[in-house]
This record gives sequence, C-alpha cells and structure tokens, in this order.
Amino acid sequence: MADLEFRSDNCGRAAPELIQALVSANEGSVLGYGGDALTKQLQTRFSQLFEHPVQVFPIPTGTGANALALAAVGSPFGAVYCSPEAHINTSECNATSFFGSGLKVTPVHGVDGKVDPLALDAAVSNAGKGQAHKNQPEAINLVQATDMGAVYSVSEVAAIGQIARAHGLTVHMDGARFANAVATLGCTPAELTWKAGVDILSFGVTKNGGLLTDAIVVFNPEVAKKMGFHLRRAGMIWSKMRFASAQVMAYVQDDLWLRLARQSNAAALTVAQGIAHLQGVKLIAPVQANELFVEMNPKAVDYLIAQGVLFYRRAPNMFRLVCRWDTTTEETTRLIALIEQSPRG
Amino acid sequence: MADLEFRSDNCGRAAPELIQALVSANEGSVLGYGGDALTKQLQTRFSQLFEHPVQVFPIPTGTGANALALAAVGSPFGAVYCSPEAHINTSECNATSFFGSGLKVTPVHGVDGKVDPLALDAAVSNAGKGQAHKNQPEAINLVQATDMGAVYSVSEVAAIGQIARAHGLTVHMDGARFANAVATLGCTPAELTWKAGVDILSFGVTKNGGLLTDAIVVFNPEVAKKMGFHLRRAGMIWSKMRFASAQVMAYVQDDLWLRLARQSNAAALTVAQGIAHLQGVKLIAPVQANELFVEMNPKAVDYLIAQGVLFYRRAPNMFRLVCRWDTTTEETTRLIALIEQSPRG
Amino acid sequence: MADLEFRSDNCGRAAPELIQALVSANEGSVLGYGGDALTKQLQTRFSQLFEHPVQVFPIPTGTGANALALAAVGSPFGAVYCSPEAHINTSECNATSFFGSGLKVTPVHGVDGKVDPLALDAAVSNAGKGQAHKNQPEAINLVQATDMGAVYSVSEVAAIGQIARAHGLTVHMDGARFANAVATLGCTPAELTWKAGVDILSFGVTKNGGLLTDAIVVFNPEVAKKMGFHLRRAGMIWSKMRFASAQVMAYVQDDLWLRLARQSNAAALTVAQGIAHLQGVKLIAPVQANELFVEMNPKAVDYLIAQGVLFYRRAPNMFRLVCRWDTTTEETTRLIALIEQSPRG
Amino acid sequence: MADLEFRSDNCGRAAPELIQALVSANEGSVLGYGGDALTKQLQTRFSQLFEHPVQVFPIPTGTGANALALAAVGSPFGAVYCSPEAHINTSECNATSFFGSGLKVTPVHGVDGKVDPLALDAAVSNAGKGQAHKNQPEAINLVQATDMGAVYSVSEVAAIGQIARAHGLTVHMDGARFANAVATLGCTPAELTWKAGVDILSFGVTKNGGLLTDAIVVFNPEVAKKMGFHLRRAGMIWSKMRFASAQVMAYVQDDLWLRLARQSNAAALTVAQGIAHLQGVKLIAPVQANELFVEMNPKAVDYLIAQGVLFYRRAPNMFRLVCRWDTTTEETTRLIALIEQSPRG
Repeated sequence: MADLEFRSDNCGRAAPELIQALVSANEGSVLGYGGDALTKQLQTRFSQLFEHPVQVFPIPTGTGANALALAAVGSPFGAVYCSPEAHINTSECNATSFFGSGLKVTPVHGVDGKVDPLALDAAVSNAGKGQAHKNQPEAINLVQATDMGAVYSVSEVAAIGQIARAHGLTVHMDGARFANAVATLGCTPAELTWKAGVDILSFGVTKNGGLLTDAIVVFNPEVAKKMGFHLRRAGMIWSKMRFASAQVMAYVQDDLWLRLARQSNAAALTVAQGIAHLQGVKLIAPVQANELFVEMNPKAVDYLIAQGVLFYRRAPNMFRLVCRWDTTTEETTRLIALIEQSPRG
Repeated sequence: MADLEFRSDNCGRAAPELIQALVSANEGSVLGYGGDALTKQLQTRFSQLFEHPVQVFPIPTGTGANALALAAVGSPFGAVYCSPEAHINTSECNATSFFGSGLKVTPVHGVDGKVDPLALDAAVSNAGKGQAHKNQPEAINLVQATDMGAVYSVSEVAAIGQIARAHGLTVHMDGARFANAVATLGCTPAELTWKAGVDILSFGVTKNGGLLTDAIVVFNPEVAKKMGFHLRRAGMIWSKMRFASAQVMAYVQDDLWLRLARQSNAAALTVAQGIAHLQGVKLIAPVQANELFVEMNPKAVDYLIAQGVLFYRRAPNMFRLVCRWDTTTEETTRLIALIEQSPRG
Repeated sequence: MADLEFRSDNCGRAAPELIQALVSANEGSVLGYGGDALTKQLQTRFSQLFEHPVQVFPIPTGTGANALALAAVGSPFGAVYCSPEAHINTSECNATSFFGSGLKVTPVHGVDGKVDPLALDAAVSNAGKGQAHKNQPEAINLVQATDMGAVYSVSEVAAIGQIARAHGLTVHMDGARFANAVATLGCTPAELTWKAGVDILSFGVTKNGGLLTDAIVVFNPEVAKKMGFHLRRAGMIWSKMRFASAQVMAYVQDDLWLRLARQSNAAALTVAQGIAHLQGVKLIAPVQANELFVEMNPKAVDYLIAQGVLFYRRAPNMFRLVCRWDTTTEETTRLIALIEQSPRG
Repeated sequence: MADLEFRSDNCGRAAPELIQALVSANEGSVLGYGGDALTKQLQTRFSQLFEHPVQVFPIPTGTGANALALAAVGSPFGAVYCSPEAHINTSECNATSFFGSGLKVTPVHGVDGKVDPLALDAAVSNAGKGQAHKNQPEAINLVQATDMGAVYSVSEVAAIGQIARAHGLTVHMDGARFANAVATLGCTPAELTWKAGVDILSFGVTKNGGLLTDAIVVFNPEVAKKMGFHLRRAGMIWSKMRFASAQVMAYVQDDLWLRLARQSNAAALTVAQGIAHLQGVKLIAPVQANELFVEMNPKAVDYLIAQGVLFYRRAPNMFRLVCRWDTTTEETTRLIALIEQSPRG
C-alpha cells in the first residue's frame, strides 16, 4: 500500500495549467529582468484582480517574499509584530532580521495562529516608542491562512488594520495560503487586503499548485518604487522573468487559484468532518483552510505512522495534516479510516 | 522586418528539454526543500560530472549564486578580488557586500575581463594583511567566460589558483557562461575547476537554455556543510526544489549543456569572422564564447539600431552582441550584412 | 530637598582613579589603535587577573561588547539563547541580530533573570538542529549579575557551561555588572568564567565607576585572532586607545573594581534590609548585586516620585532601584525613610 | 636621541582642556544616554557655532561617524561617491557597506585626495539611475582636509554641493580634520558646510587634541530624527554620555579647536617651507593642513628611519608626515635638519 501524503502542500504537484504556461511563454526573445510584455501584463492583471493600482513582483520563495516585503517597509531599528506561530518567527531562519538589518521579529499573543488585537495594541503601546534602546514598532505581520490552519475574517483583518493606522504601522500579510483564505471567506481579494488596511502582501503560489515562484503585491506606490532595487540587490530578480510571470498569470486565470484552493480546503474539511466526532481526537484549531492540527494519544499517532501516513509530528500527541490541491477522495477516505482504526482509547 | 535579437542570452528561450523535465518531474508527491529523490540524484550526477564529491545547490539567480558563494567562504571584514568588469562589481547592486555583511569587492587590473595574475599577486601582497583598517584578502572571483567574452585557459585558471593557495585565499568561479568556456576549451569540468584550484563554482544554467535556476557547486565539504543554512536564511531554497533539480539534471543530460553552448559560441564566431576584416570594425576582446564587443563609428552604430538590431550600446562607438543557443544562421547572416552595409567609412 | 538618584548606575560619577589614569596616560606620543604599551600591558594584566592567557579589547559600550562578542562567535543563521529579561533581548535595539547578520536572540524560561538549565536544554534539544528552517543553536548569553539583580553562583554558571559543551555551544557572559557578581560571590574571576565554561566575556566598567569604556575578554585564542577585525569594521576601535586602556588598567588596579562594587552592593543590601520587612513591600527578586526590584501599591509608588525619588517604574506597582558605587548612606537612609512613610497600606 | 614622532595625529596627546572638562563633568548624577544637561547644551552650542539648528551626536570613532552618517542617509542599494584616497575607501574595513547593508563605496577620479567635480558628474550621470543592477547614486563623501593633506576651498565644496543637488544626492563631509581646514581657510563652519551644500558632517575631535570621542553633526532635521536609533542599534551611544559631550564642549570653547589646528597646520607649513626647496625632495600634494606627502629617493628615506624619524612609508620613495597640535619647534627643526642631511643626491 502506498504512503499517504499529508506532510505539506509543497510536497504536491504543480497544476498542469502553470506548466502549460511555461511552455507557451517559451516563444521568441524578450527583454530580461521583468522588461518583458508578460510581466507588464501581470501588473494590469493584478491591478484588476485587486481593484487597485498595484505592483506585483514574482519572487522565488515565500521566505524571500516575507523578508523583503518587511525589509522594504521597515528600518534597521524597527520591530515587526506577529503571532508566535508565524512562519517568519518559526521557520525562516530569521531572514527578516537579516534582510532587515536588525529588524526585530516580535511575537505577540494570539490564538489559532492569529495576532490578538488587544495584545497587539498593548505590545505596541508599551514598546517604548521614542526610546532608542527599543526596537521601534513599524510593521505587523498577519499570516493568512494562519500557521494553525485558521482564517482571519475580513473584519478581523480590518481590526488589526485600524490598530496599525492608530500607531502609524505598516500591515504585511503573509499570504502563503491567501487563496485558501479567499476561497473560505468568499470575499474579494480587495476586501481582504487594502480595503482592510493591508499595505503589502506575500501572494502565495507555490503551495497551491505553483512550481518555483511566489509574488509580492505592493499597494503603496512609494514602497513599490523602491522594491525592484531591494529585490535586485537580494538576488531575487530572475533574468528570464517571463517564465515566472507566466506562472502567476496562469495561476489567476479563470479563477484557477481559487478552484485549486477550494479543492485542498474541501479535502481538509472532509477529513475534519470525518474525525472530529471520534473519541480521543481533538482538533486544536479551527479547520478553515487546508491544514489540520490534531491531538491524539501517542500510541494512535504511532499507529498512523506505522500505517504509512506521512505528516509532521509536532509533539508525541500532536501532528499536522496538510491537504494539497490534488489530494484525492481516496486519500482522505483512507486517512479517515486509519484514524478510526487507530488505538485512540 | 523583425528585429534582430542580440541583447542578451537571457532574452532567449529555454531549451525544450528543460521544460520537458519540468513536466516529467510533476508526478507524485515528494519531500520539499531538497529532500526529494531528484535533488539527491543531482548530487551523484554532479559528482560524476566533476569527478569529485561535490554538493550542488540549485539557486534562483546567478547573483544569488555569486553573492552567497562568496558570503559562505568570506568574512565580514574580508576582500574578494575580481576584474573591474566582473559581474559582481558592475551588475549585481553590490549583493556580495550585502550578503557578505561588508565583504568588499575589490577590482584588480586585467585585460579582456580577466584578473591579471601579477596584478592580483601585487594587490594581495599590498593589501595590509593583519591590519584591521584593511579588508583582509579572502577570495578571488573569476568570471568564466569573462564579461568581455574571453575565456581563461586551464593554465590561466591554475595560475590564479596557485596565487590563491600561496596567500591562503579561496577561488570562486562565476560560471554564468561556464558551459561556453568548457565548450571552447574542450577540457573537462574537473580540469577547469578543482583541479585548477577552484573551490566553489556558480554554475550557470539560465543564460544557456535554462529557465529559472542556476546552481552553486561546492568542492570543499566544510563549506558545503553550511551552505544550506546560508541559502535558507537568504530565502534561496525553493520548497518545490524538484522542479529546479529537474532542470539542472536535464541540462547536463547527454551533454545538452555543451551542445547548447557550442551553438551560441558558433554563432558568435560566425559573426566575428564575418565582420572582423571589415574596415572600421574593431573587436575589442577575443571572441571565445558567445559575446562580441564591437567598436564602430557612432553613425554606423546608429544605423544598426535604426535597422532594428537589438543590442546594448556601451558607448557611442561601442556595443555588445550576445548570441543565444537558438540564434539562427539567418540572424547572423542578416546581422553581418547590416554591419557590412553600415556607414563605417 | 535634592532629588534622590536611584535610576541607574550609569547616572553616577566616574571613580576619580580612572580620571587620574587618563591624566597620567596623557604623556608623550604612542602608536594608535591599540599599538601602545598600555594596551599591551593590559593583556598581561588581564591574563594574570583571569589566570589564563586572554585577549582584552576595550570597547566603547556594553551593547557593542555584547553584540560583537556574539557576532564573532556566531553564524548568520545561528541562535543565541538568553533569559527573557536579558539586556540583549530587551534593551539593545536588536544590535545582536544586526551585527550578527540575522543571528537570532532566543529567550528561554528562567527566574530572577537567569537562564533555567532545564529550559535551556529542552529549547536547544528541540531547536531543529540540522534543519535549515531553524536558526541553529550556537551560543548562550548569561547576564551576570542578572537584569533582575540576582547573581548566578559558580555552580549555576558551570551547569550552563556543561549544557553548552554537550550541545557544542559557546557561552557568552554579559558581565555589565561582573564586578558586583564577583564581589558578592567572593570567588575568583577565573572561577566564574573559563573554569565554569565561559568562552567570552563582556567585562563591564562603565556602570561601576567607568567613563567611556567597557571591554571584551576573550578566552578562546581562535576567536581572539579575529576579534580585532570584527571591531575595526564596526568602528569600535579607538585610534587613541591608550586612554581607554588606561581606564581599564586603573579599574582593576589594587582591586578598585571590587571595592567599588562592594559599595554599590552594600548600599542595595542596606535598602533591602531596611524595607523588606515593611508591610506592602515586596522584593520580587533576590538582592544580590546593586539592584532592587520592588512591588508596592501604585499610590505608594506615586508618593515616592512626588518626594523626588528618581527611579524607573516598570509597572504601576513595580519599580527598579539601582545603587551606584558612590551612593551615600544619607541617600539610602532617606530612601528607606520615604518608603516607610509611603501609603503602602 | 629620542625618536621624532610624525606618524599620525592620533599618536599625540589630548589637550589638557579636554581632560579638565572630564574632571569638571564628574559631579553629581545625571541621566544617561545623552539625557543630561551637558549634552543638551551641546546642541545649542553647536547650533550657534554652525549658525543653523543642528543636532550633534558624540560618537566614539571617526569610522563610526562616517559609516553611520552614510548609512543613515543611504539605502541598501545605494552608492556613495568619494575620492580613491578617501578614508572610507582605504582605511575603514568597509564599515560603510556593513552599516549601510550593501551601500557601495564608489571612488571617482580626483587629485590631491579631492573628488573632481567633472568626474563626479560623469560618474553619477553614467551610473545607471533606475537600473536595478546598479547601485543607485545617493551620497557624496568629501574628506576635509583630504587624505592627501589638501583642503577644499569653500567654492570647491559648493561646486560639489551643486552637483549633488542636481542629482538629488546627499553630501557627507568627513571632517576628521575639519578644524585644520577651517583654520586654513579662515571661513566660518557654516560657510564650509550647510551653506555650501553639506547635509551631514563627521566632526573630528580625536586627531586634534581629543581623547575618545568624535561627533556627527546633522543639518537635516529629518535625518536627525532617526540618527539616535541608528546609533543605539550600532552600540554607539555611551550610557555616560556627559563625559563625551564635555570633551566636545571644551573642544570648541574659546576657539580651542582652531588654536590647536593652527598649531599643527603651522608645524606642517614650517616643515614644508624647510624642505620644499631641497634638491631631491618633492611634495606630492599641497600642504594645506597638518600632513605632508614627501617623495625622496629610497636611500634618503632609509636614512630618516635610521635616524629615528617615525612616519608611515607608503612606497620605497614616498612617505607621509603628520604634525600634531603639540608638535614642537624642536621637532620640526630636527626633522628639517635630518632631511637636509639625508643622501638625496
């Protein structure tokens, strides 16, 4: 019996549409480093998508997107606030402080991987503004969907946005799973970003059917003007940019991105609904995107591993399951059955 | 009449074999961040190719490859020597000093884009070793083929390698056009690198039929051990690494890389032979790879532009022509004809 | 009535002996940047003081000492562990991540400003060694005396030292109040540092009677060899170094540093003994050096402020008192009286 | 016979007035980190001195002053132009690129250690503004007096200032020997700085009778607002700032700084006039401050060394002589006599 893949959405395949886009882009010669027609069209396309004049910069990785977005809006003596579970705090080898030349990643309390608005307000208020000993509050990082698989509602984002405005801070959204969040909420991209106070967005592609590119979407023209220089100095601008832009174009073509996200979301929901009622199974965060965080006794977790279920175990009695855009019904069915059969008692 | 493309090898198409490799790699689920089987095979394949145990790290851009290779072998108070025309000195927005935390890019005299061994030896000898005021000599950067279109012979590399050893320096080769150089010299990759004293190599793919990846090849296991951490912190490790590794594998499969390089080299040679004898035309560096640097009177240069020839003009009377792996005989023939017809007199 | 100064030891005067040393050093001409005889003598003097061959580098500030000591022993992808209250975590504007190019400051649990050995061991064990997503454990920062006014015993330092060795980590001691700790413990400087596993020490002078210099003491010769380059690149080496070295020499001459520390320690103890028994007064950490952290009801704290007592209020009901080497009996007597009179009820 | 000291002005003594100022400042307790009255007075005093509202930040070293001034006005992708001999280019271990996170130090042609206005204009015009490959022109660094011992006239500075304005660049003056330049020119500090287009000044103290402090003077209030944060994060703000501010206050009291500079300038002029006419002696740059650059045949240079003259030999036949504020007539007389007696023939 083959292994069951629930490790990460980045273990999955690329959507054929994106690969086809690469094939189609491979015609004729074009200017390098983003001077090509496809990259120009991408600007227009995303300005439509976000109902706002934006600049979009394809970038190889989500870590690059996050760290360079934050470095571009922050100072070397700044602080960026985030949830303790935020990817920039736990999984990017402190790239934000590196690219930000000392910019400090500062976790504040929250649940389900979210930043708690009251905790944020208190932290910023007590941060020692104007005291040179202290990193100065400059930015907020929201992960959408969160690193616990939850989704900020539009009004939750707007609440954070308001605090940001009150304190003169920039809002960065780490949208590694932005598509999953939009799919869940049924809102527009605009409602979830600039209309709610988001200034700059890491627009995830890779985890949701992409290959080798994510993107930074900049809503603030002042920041956009300098972004290309930041990226170039960081070695983050491909010379054959058309092949990245083609992927991003295909990704949003005919709502592909939302269709793919709906598939991984639905798979996660299927699993959640299949196991939530089982005795000895606890979902420790709401399942609102494509991830599940499950508590079971260690023996039951061991059993799943022995049966070939692949996932990341975070503790003896806790593990994460991630569904991909191409997770099949057979896979979710087998997984649910195995959890049912596991010695949870 | 269509424009004639001679701007850059990064304006060209990808080789279909590399795109096909992406398609083929898009099967099943695999571990992310380089934990997949293809990336493992790549290690073996490159160790064979270089006749030496190496580690190879696919990386999005050549700038990233150069800057991170140098940062990994250098200190924040170090100096890296290069030719004045070196890409790290002229075209990478000082990424080397950024990733290297102050590592200084220090040009030394040379001709045809090469580092002159005597000038290098003198510069290092007079650099103030042990004086904290002075950036301490740590590395040498060779561009192969050079930024003037010339190629270091194996013995020229070895001469630099010997100076490096005498002074305890590391040798980095910026092989953005490594394939062109190997194709020209007819040597083995091993002869041109570690056997001649090269410690770490930026292995170019993009300019020679690639899409979105280059690679770092590390010959020194101590350096290799830390390279992954350097790259991750720099946001330079793709989560879906298999799609990068697949390109690099296809690139070296059945000598594809050398065949592609021979094509662009041959196109450049054709142009060189077609124009070198013309009155008023001067090639200012040897044409040993796929680039030509041409001097003509400004009126003649204007004429070419007016006729739709695309290239980078470096001065009123000087321009660069670059041939791609897919530059056609028709293109070179038309170019030669236009230069013949230009008002050079 | 004059204000009562209990804000910080850096609000106090310099010891006259150090100023006299400046006067005495101002004779004749000497080589700059540490090439002078006094700076050489300092090496010998400290090697005697620490019963170990050390290199000592006077440096303008404690922040510089901490950040550059850690940057010199860490990697750009490293993590340094410390207590949540550690100065590097709370009061240095993330200089450690800046000088360390991304080196992450990582608080672990502890009480009284100390690092808890078990929490440290667990944190390091679970840090994800070998996973490039995670900052790699590299160093431990101990503050001695702690930022809560407590002192690590020799065996407590040694316990941390052992964990460090087990995990291959470097131990940095932030000895901004090293003199106070040695004075309290009655141990030798050697026992509290290298004999207990400390590799590098920020040796505080400023807070204990100094003017404009602290120092880094390096026990590891490999690190020492490169330290001068790190410091020079950071603009941290005075050209007229003799005036810094003279201060440090005078500071340790005839045990001046310990006499000064005993004075501020005694003043703090006097206050502690004078107020500890009062109702409504709580000392929230042991008073083992020259600092007190006091809880009283907000009205009582307000009263002290109104009476002209100067200190830093950390919360409505909590404040810090710091005694200086020249805090007088009159000052401590008046302070105790005012606390007695305050409306604590 | 004692050695003759002509190595550097940083080999000399401090002016007694500055040491006396330290003694006087050592009274009572004051707030740390620049919150004291003396540091406040310094702001007023310098605003008078420069006839302009300025902020002045005492800072330990000239390297710190230069690098942090430039980092505060530049971007990580910027270029700062300077003369090839500029201290930031030759003697500061690339601190500017380090603190500036990649900010590139870019030498342009000039004579006598100056930046040539035409060369500067050409370099900036051809720098590739708007091209992300290229470090973007942002700042100009002028060394006053120059590293060749010459002095920019007010109109020369203004000419550079005009080019800066035309290109939107900031002008930084490295005034390590600013006093020597003002003394030579007989102009006001205002005329030589902001009136001529200088935005930020490294105000040298150490070389001209100081001990352990230099200063940054900021003419632009926007830059001034952030400077304290930059400095704190760099570990460049002393907690006992009053002892630095006291030095700087004493330095400009009753024109002390100009009197000291006149003394070293006069000594240099005496030497210049004493040797310029000698056969086989060539002064390779105008002697307008306190430094001389002398060419003589190697045998004559050897002779001086053998006779105990201390200086830095830059080449077999070239050396630098530096006069201090306390260089005596006896010293210059002996030096001239030894040069006369040297085998120059």
